[in-house]
Amino acid sequence: MILQRSSMTLEEVFNAIERAKEPSIARLKELVRIPSVSAENKGVECADALITLLKKEIGFTTRKISTSGSPVVYAEKNVGAPTTLLFYNHYDVQPVDPLSDWQSPPFEATLRDGKLYGRGVSDNKGNIVARIFAIKAYQSIFGALPLNLKFVIEGQEEIGSPYLHEFVEKYPELAQADFCIWEDGHRDADGNQQIWLGVKGILYLNLAITTAKRDIHSSWGGVVENPAWDLVWLLNSLKTPDQKILIDGYYDTVQEPTAAELENLEAIPFNTKAYYEDFGIQQFLQTGRDLKTAYYYAPSLTIDGLTCGYQGPGDKTIIPAEAKAKIDFRLVPNQEPDDLLEKFKSHLQKHHFDNVKIISHHGYPPARVPLSSQYLRVIGETGEQIYGHPLVVHPTSAGSGPMYLFKMDCFSFGCGNAFEQVHAPNENILLEDLVLNMKHLAAIVHAFTPD
Amino acid sequence: MILQRSSMTLEEVFNAIERAKEPSIARLKELVRIPSVSAENKGVECADALITLLKKEIGFTTRKISTSGSPVVYAEKNVGAPTTLLFYNHYDVQPVDPLSDWQSPPFEATLRDGKLYGRGVSDNKGNIVARIFAIKAYQSIFGALPLNLKFVIEGQEEIGSPYLHEFVEKYPELAQADFCIWEDGHRDADGNQQIWLGVKGILYLNLAITTAKRDIHSSWGGVVENPAWDLVWLLNSLKTPDQKILIDGYYDTVQEPTAAELENLEAIPFNTKAYYEDFGIQQFLQTGRDLKTAYYYAPSLTIDGLTCGYQGPGDKTIIPAEAKAKIDFRLVPNQEPDDLLEKFKSHLQKHHFDNVKIISHHGYPPARVPLSSQYLRVIGETGEQIYGHPLVVHPTSAGSGPMYLFKMDCFSFGCGNAFEQVHAPNENILLEDLVLNMKHLAAIVHAFTPD
Repeated sequence: MILQRSSMTLEEVFNAIERAKEPSIARLKELVRIPSVSAENKGVECADALITLLKKEIGFTTRKISTSGSPVVYAEKNVGAPTTLLFYNHYDVQPVDPLSDWQSPPFEATLRDGKLYGRGVSDNKGNIVARIFAIKAYQSIFGALPLNLKFVIEGQEEIGSPYLHEFVEKYPELAQADFCIWEDGHRDADGNQQIWLGVKGILYLNLAITTAKRDIHSSWGGVVENPAWDLVWLLNSLKTPDQKILIDGYYDTVQEPTAAELENLEAIPFNTKAYYEDFGIQQFLQTGRDLKTAYYYAPSLTIDGLTCGYQGPGDKTIIPAEAKAKIDFRLVPNQEPDDLLEKFKSHLQKHHFDNVKIISHHGYPPARVPLSSQYLRVIGETGEQIYGHPLVVHPTSAGSGPMYLFKMDCFSFGCGNAFEQVHAPNENILLEDLVLNMKHLAAIVHAFTPD
Repeated sequence: MILQRSSMTLEEVFNAIERAKEPSIARLKELVRIPSVSAENKGVECADALITLLKKEIGFTTRKISTSGSPVVYAEKNVGAPTTLLFYNHYDVQPVDPLSDWQSPPFEATLRDGKLYGRGVSDNKGNIVARIFAIKAYQSIFGALPLNLKFVIEGQEEIGSPYLHEFVEKYPELAQADFCIWEDGHRDADGNQQIWLGVKGILYLNLAITTAKRDIHSSWGGVVENPAWDLVWLLNSLKTPDQKILIDGYYDTVQEPTAAELENLEAIPFNTKAYYEDFGIQQFLQTGRDLKTAYYYAPSLTIDGLTCGYQGPGDKTIIPAEAKAKIDFRLVPNQEPDDLLEKFKSHLQKHHFDNVKIISHHGYPPARVPLSSQYLRVIGETGEQIYGHPLVVHPTSAGSGPMYLFKMDCFSFGCGNAFEQVHAPNENILLEDLVLNMKHLAAIVHAFTPD
């Protein structure tokens, strides 16, 4: 067993982690206070706060690397070990609206009943703090690290990491490592710690249709083109009510799950009732293995937002001048966002949606680690000791991230919980999870101690 | 010719109208100053100002009749003539937003280059003032009126006349007359005075679909029901891109235009280029006679507004918890809003849109006067003498109004112009049109002088 090699000393690290609870929460609160909402171009100074933290708390060498967008925070400690681990994180957060649904101010992290509430406490500032303080505790007991460590912390993950590729292309050596712990993760509804072996890709599109220079009285409804109708017909042409995406060639490159992979799905718990309660839904669109297959292995198409015409109280009789939609495609291996964008444009042409404008788009390809990875074994064994049960291994996250940029095995797990409300009001983290995650990280680091 | 019977004396009425220009504008400014925005429940005291005006200026008997909403102003002068004419008007106005687009304050009517600008100068306070001062001028020359006159001036037309039916039901004798001059009208883009012989009906629906208690991360997009998609599929099920409405039985009761009516369409000018410029559009959905047929004789279905999910800048990856739509059906004889509402509900059932909620609805039936109406002949002949050209006769307005409550021939015409911006910033009226409209009204009254 890995832990038994020097378990007493690792126990001391765990004690140091327990003692680090208060200062780590204090640092997390400071980070949350910086409203680094990338969608609103705010709080980029969070990069400087992180550089201070990485220097002061764990003595890493740091660099603030500029891109065409927000800067990337890079930090490293090279101890000349044979193995290098890279932490990928991001310091930006999602917008906070609807603000009125927050029970405490989103940028003032607030403790209630063992939980810390605030925007970014889980996604992703909480994980950054957990990683830094796990390393700090390890160094405080052992002095030196048994493997080389790197941090790459970007500032625009929540808007699709549009410039992270510049960092990777310009500094390929900084982006190199043997394996990577990805931004975050959370325990499931039954409390089981989980790990994800990949991400889906994404293509996010902002669409707009403008048909007039002003809203027009709806008595003209039968003879004047209405962009809301054009939008409805476009969207309807993209997906059927049984979730089939109708873009020509959309499924051509999809890597279907193997029989073994489908078999493996059986082992993954899926607490539907807990999700029902969390989301406030009655059912999923599928059941049983179909549900899991769709969740992990199928691409999807979501309408994220619609806006058009009069949206206030009461009635107003107008033909809107403009209609807008936000949609996202989730991609599985081997779909490519650039290829899909071309297919989407062809779809517009084929169906004569000539007035649809793609206002903006972003995307990245999917990524997936094989179940046989040697690093998965280390993470799994240490995790089982910390959490007292085998980790739940998901073949991929249904979410997306720029994992494809890092050419190594990437593992997503972190300090979140099943009801953490990321991207929504009242985002939260359990202090207990923060501590367990720090212990797990310390144990992984320790596992690379030479015999 | 009607006018020749006593043309010299009618000429004196016209002179009196010219002299009445300044006092009528002064009274109109006073009415505009009262911000009687029914959507905001403001300025109901406008009813009292009108009662004073109707008493003081033309000596009518007045009543302020309460309803569950704003009061109805009723006024009459019964001279024991065989014919009774009823004026239908409203003292409420549309909201003024966006306020910043007004070149002068909306509630301070301002003269610029022969036009008076302000909220309600045309719709509908200008028409009220024109009618009162035409009668005043007539009485100042002839002493007595040759026909009985009534005013019914309601206070909630702009929000769909929700309580006018109470007045009609409680006081049917007050709502009785031989014919009616409806609230307003305007000259076309070429300066031709127009008249409308009816209104389309309307059914306005506020729809909502709620599928979850909160927005959910869009990584769940393939397995969680999305109300935006449900809304898209519902709306798509209602109308095809060639404007065919797909609700079972929707067209069953539609009174198709006769060959004669279609023929009559040829005489109606339709300055498409002026509309293109006004609306900022490139074309209508139809051309030529098809365009006119659709505009006057076809029912329509308009999306007035859509709201759902994230609508701010940038990207946010969520499955929205709720999606909403505002839609309106315009109805032609003999469609009924209550019947259509039932058919709409059946459509929801038939296509299993079980989660669609009708949050609110309002509607009223269409109304139409036959081209053979004897009163049309009087209005047309006098109009031709005043304006120097035959009136453009529209078989119906494409807009809607509570005309169905008045069981008589109703004619819409008034003092507006083609660029009057009703319901929009910088609503305006040409003083020249105000005077011509008053002369036309005086000539109509005079035409009922017994031989």
